[in-house]
Amino acid sequence: MMKQRSFCTSLWQCYFEYSTPKILVIRSFKVGTLNRFTQALVIAYIIGYVCVLKKGYQDTDTVLSSVTTKVKGIALTNTSDLGLRIWDVADYVIPPQEENSFFVLTNLIITLNQTQSRCPESNSTGFYCTSDRDCRVGLRDTRGNGVQTGKCVNYSADVKTCEVWAWCPLEMDAEPPVPPMLGDAENFTVLIKNSIRYPKFNFNKRNILPHVNTSYLEHCVFNRITDPDCPIFRLKDMVTEAEEDFQTMAVHGGVMGVQISWECNLDMPSSWCVPKYTFRRLDNKDPVNNVAPGYNFRFAKYYKNGDNQETRTLIKGFGIRFDVMVFGQAGKFNIVPTLVNIGAGLALLGLVSLIRLHWTYFYKAPF
Amino acid sequence: MMKQRSFCTSLWQCYFEYSTPKILVIRSFKVGTLNRFTQALVIAYIIGYVCVLKKGYQDTDTVLSSVTTKVKGIALTNTSDLGLRIWDVADYVIPPQEENSFFVLTNLIITLNQTQSRCPESNSTGFYCTSDRDCRVGLRDTRGNGVQTGKCVNYSADVKTCEVWAWCPLEMDAEPPVPPMLGDAENFTVLIKNSIRYPKFNFNKRNILPHVNTSYLEHCVFNRITDPDCPIFRLKDMVTEAEEDFQTMAVHGGVMGVQISWECNLDMPSSWCVPKYTFRRLDNKDPVNNVAPGYNFRFAKYYKNGDNQETRTLIKGFGIRFDVMVFGQAGKFNIVPTLVNIGAGLALLGLVSLIRLHWTYFYKAPF
Amino acid sequence: MMKQRSFCTSLWQCYFEYSTPKILVIRSFKVGTLNRFTQALVIAYIIGYVCVLKKGYQDTDTVLSSVTTKVKGIALTNTSDLGLRIWDVADYVIPPQEENSFFVLTNLIITLNQTQSRCPESNSTGFYCTSDRDCRVGLRDTRGNGVQTGKCVNYSADVKTCEVWAWCPLEMDAEPPVPPMLGDAENFTVLIKNSIRYPKFNFNKRNILPHVNTSYLEHCVFNRITDPDCPIFRLKDMVTEAEEDFQTMAVHGGVMGVQISWECNLDMPSSWCVPKYTFRRLDNKDPVNNVAPGYNFRFAKYYKNGDNQETRTLIKGFGIRFDVMVFGQAGKFNIVPTLVNIGAGLALLGLVSLIRLHWTYFYKAPF
Repeated sequence: MMKQRSFCTSLWQCYFEYSTPKILVIRSFKVGTLNRFTQALVIAYIIGYVCVLKKGYQDTDTVLSSVTTKVKGIALTNTSDLGLRIWDVADYVIPPQEENSFFVLTNLIITLNQTQSRCPESNSTGFYCTSDRDCRVGLRDTRGNGVQTGKCVNYSADVKTCEVWAWCPLEMDAEPPVPPMLGDAENFTVLIKNSIRYPKFNFNKRNILPHVNTSYLEHCVFNRITDPDCPIFRLKDMVTEAEEDFQTMAVHGGVMGVQISWECNLDMPSSWCVPKYTFRRLDNKDPVNNVAPGYNFRFAKYYKNGDNQETRTLIKGFGIRFDVMVFGQAGKFNIVPTLVNIGAGLALLGLVSLIRLHWTYFYKAPF
Repeated sequence: MMKQRSFCTSLWQCYFEYSTPKILVIRSFKVGTLNRFTQALVIAYIIGYVCVLKKGYQDTDTVLSSVTTKVKGIALTNTSDLGLRIWDVADYVIPPQEENSFFVLTNLIITLNQTQSRCPESNSTGFYCTSDRDCRVGLRDTRGNGVQTGKCVNYSADVKTCEVWAWCPLEMDAEPPVPPMLGDAENFTVLIKNSIRYPKFNFNKRNILPHVNTSYLEHCVFNRITDPDCPIFRLKDMVTEAEEDFQTMAVHGGVMGVQISWECNLDMPSSWCVPKYTFRRLDNKDPVNNVAPGYNFRFAKYYKNGDNQETRTLIKGFGIRFDVMVFGQAGKFNIVPTLVNIGAGLALLGLVSLIRLHWTYFYKAPF
Repeated sequence: MMKQRSFCTSLWQCYFEYSTPKILVIRSFKVGTLNRFTQALVIAYIIGYVCVLKKGYQDTDTVLSSVTTKVKGIALTNTSDLGLRIWDVADYVIPPQEENSFFVLTNLIITLNQTQSRCPESNSTGFYCTSDRDCRVGLRDTRGNGVQTGKCVNYSADVKTCEVWAWCPLEMDAEPPVPPMLGDAENFTVLIKNSIRYPKFNFNKRNILPHVNTSYLEHCVFNRITDPDCPIFRLKDMVTEAEEDFQTMAVHGGVMGVQISWECNLDMPSSWCVPKYTFRRLDNKDPVNNVAPGYNFRFAKYYKNGDNQETRTLIKGFGIRFDVMVFGQAGKFNIVPTLVNIGAGLALLGLVSLIRLHWTYFYKAPF
């Protein structure tokens, strides 16, 4: 019979043809309740989880950010080496500019007037000797501070160590001073300028909000309750919010995270999209296993004296590095994810009857 | 009857047993059209959205990148303070190397021969006084430039301010010079070397493309039309592409984003995978609310004079920081996502009949 | 008839009403096998791919990380310019601190005692001349080293070049020395301190593991077999693991990636969550197309001589930049993704009968 029909008619009929199962409409308290309960569950999932919690009707974008920082403040030190000395931003921020980070010197061990010359090795390195035979010419040990010349010389009245060619005098191998030399740093302030962009939505904003004016910026200091929009932070406040003590942290240094979160719902007015600041200590301050604590590095200032010989001032600087980390995700209504999520929801709803079908089948099956 | 069968037989029969609904094949113009239309919609979604737009048959990977930069160029300044002075790369790139960023000095306020000493506080800080009683010994104010000595001294012929212990003479609190001192920076060029890697596909490439040779690299300058493959960029061109004026931006400084995009379809020849450069100003240049504009920081060069006293040259440097940002995602055919997407497509197709089923049911339902 | 019923009754009946297709239970070897096979496939997919491979029952989080580095070691150079000279960490790490990166100087071209003055342009720039007419006053060329004064002077006995106002004497345009001047850098060690955090699970850890004590840290060096937990790395070992030769790489410099991977299954004991170190060369070392190889930059040390004139030492520094990159994803059991995945699995299982339904329908259809 198929053969007798023309292909065209067949195709035409096929187009309008559809198959549907024969359906029984049954009224049953047990299965009906199960049915409605499952449907309610799926609808609750779609509305509660997909739409409200996950905002499935929104397209999302992650933040692009640019950060600049500017520290202000002055510290005064009075030591036998340096005399009375003032430290300003050009002295204590090293290097003077970084991309998303700034370092503030809080403590230091300074070694003045080092020159390339010969001196006895430090006694903490263990290169003790009684005669020249205990020292090896040219030995470069990672523990040592220089290259051994092969001589054994007096380190102090009763201790002899191998002589080294090094930047002499050597740095004193000592614990950093307590209290920290630049303890004044707790009152330093930092202006953090942060511009963000959500490229997909062409949305730009910065953390200096539109209602903040120059005169307010000149005297304000961030305070979570009274001045939550001020982008100027007192260093001590940041450390305190991270539940650390500034003076303690300043001795050995450390790393602080300044987290700026820009979670924005761009379906709402753009003025609702504001930064949220949180502060955390990033390096581990484990009291039990405190191997190699803090943060320090060595740097030098180089001079030439009258007879053109190079000298340097070596500084072992302890301090706090502040890493500014900008996070964020913005969402905005978009038809594509909305349709995809509604579609997936309908599909899930459709599946309910299938699951019930299986359930009733197994329920009534003979095993 | 079930009880009489052996368990084995039961299991065996169960294995081959399957349930299928009784099906009516109906020919209806209305429902058939709906049916075919929904099927067409789903197929269009699978082919158009999943396969073509989202490339659902590909596995994806995000880029790993390494950036090095090298600025070239020379600027000449002629000021009363410094006389005729040439600035080369070691003078104007600060710090000399950074990870994904470089800073070019374009303008500066220089304060020569500062020493640790006493001088009257700047008048812009507001520490005016008439007698020593107006000044507090040891006061360290964040607005101030030093620690007050408690004396009231002449700032100028008719203005008295509190004396401070500071790096004296103090920096003049002035607006940066217009035109910018290193306006010549617009002709500086920068070679950006960028190596990328897609670890999942073991694919490496760099932005110096294979056909670029040393002689071309020596004289080329990036131009979107004539030299799109040259990795050497003129600073002014970058700023102009971001729709900014270089000389205006150079006065107060700013932050530029150099975006390198490596969107690659690795099913295509690897020579099709080329970087795309775009330039944007990252910091906010809002003409209405221009609080704390630009980008500047202070740094110092330290000297020792004949009698071993430390002096320094303080520079408040304004300039443009270029942040190099590398983005990218590569896709390559992989059997797993292909199967998963085809499966999901078939499932969606299957659901069509379910949805129709519901539709017809509700359509014909008695409420 | 519908109209006669009260609305209440109608709603009540509707609640308990459900539709179910009439079902035929058929026993067929062919279709039954297909049925079971598809079910097995789906179950295998759910268990194998979703649960075991993708760990679909876990919630995941990406790592937050903080890195500090400290290089140790001493190098000795002996050149005619500098004499015997020792280099320590303050000399060869430039800048002294960076966020996730550190640079070690391995080779250099040094130009001593530069002053702002006049000298003949370098012959490699091509500014040859025979008389003053060949030179243009004020010409600033990107190839040149200074601003032309308009004079033609003797560069050497038989070559004349245009005179420039520049930091004179000019840097010799030469290839970097082989072997590298600071070849000793291969024995330098670096302590990498890395603290990580998975914020969603409030999980902190650092790469100095709990069982590592101070005395071990003082002498250990990372070795993949004998000391896999030591966070101190010998520079040469890192370069060798990346299958590069340190002395070769040190000549022109380069960029190394130190990858720290923290893949953690937090359902397991936290002591199983340990860092995995891998090393890779990041910049391209393509022997065929080696345009502009290596990594170098120029920096200067500024001095003032007796009569207050500024001089500088220009250093073209070649070296290896180590970028520390921390990756990681942690997973932990969570009820939400578990339910979502089980739900999706059941749905897929339900679809099996639909697919079969279609299959049988098309199989038996009259075309």
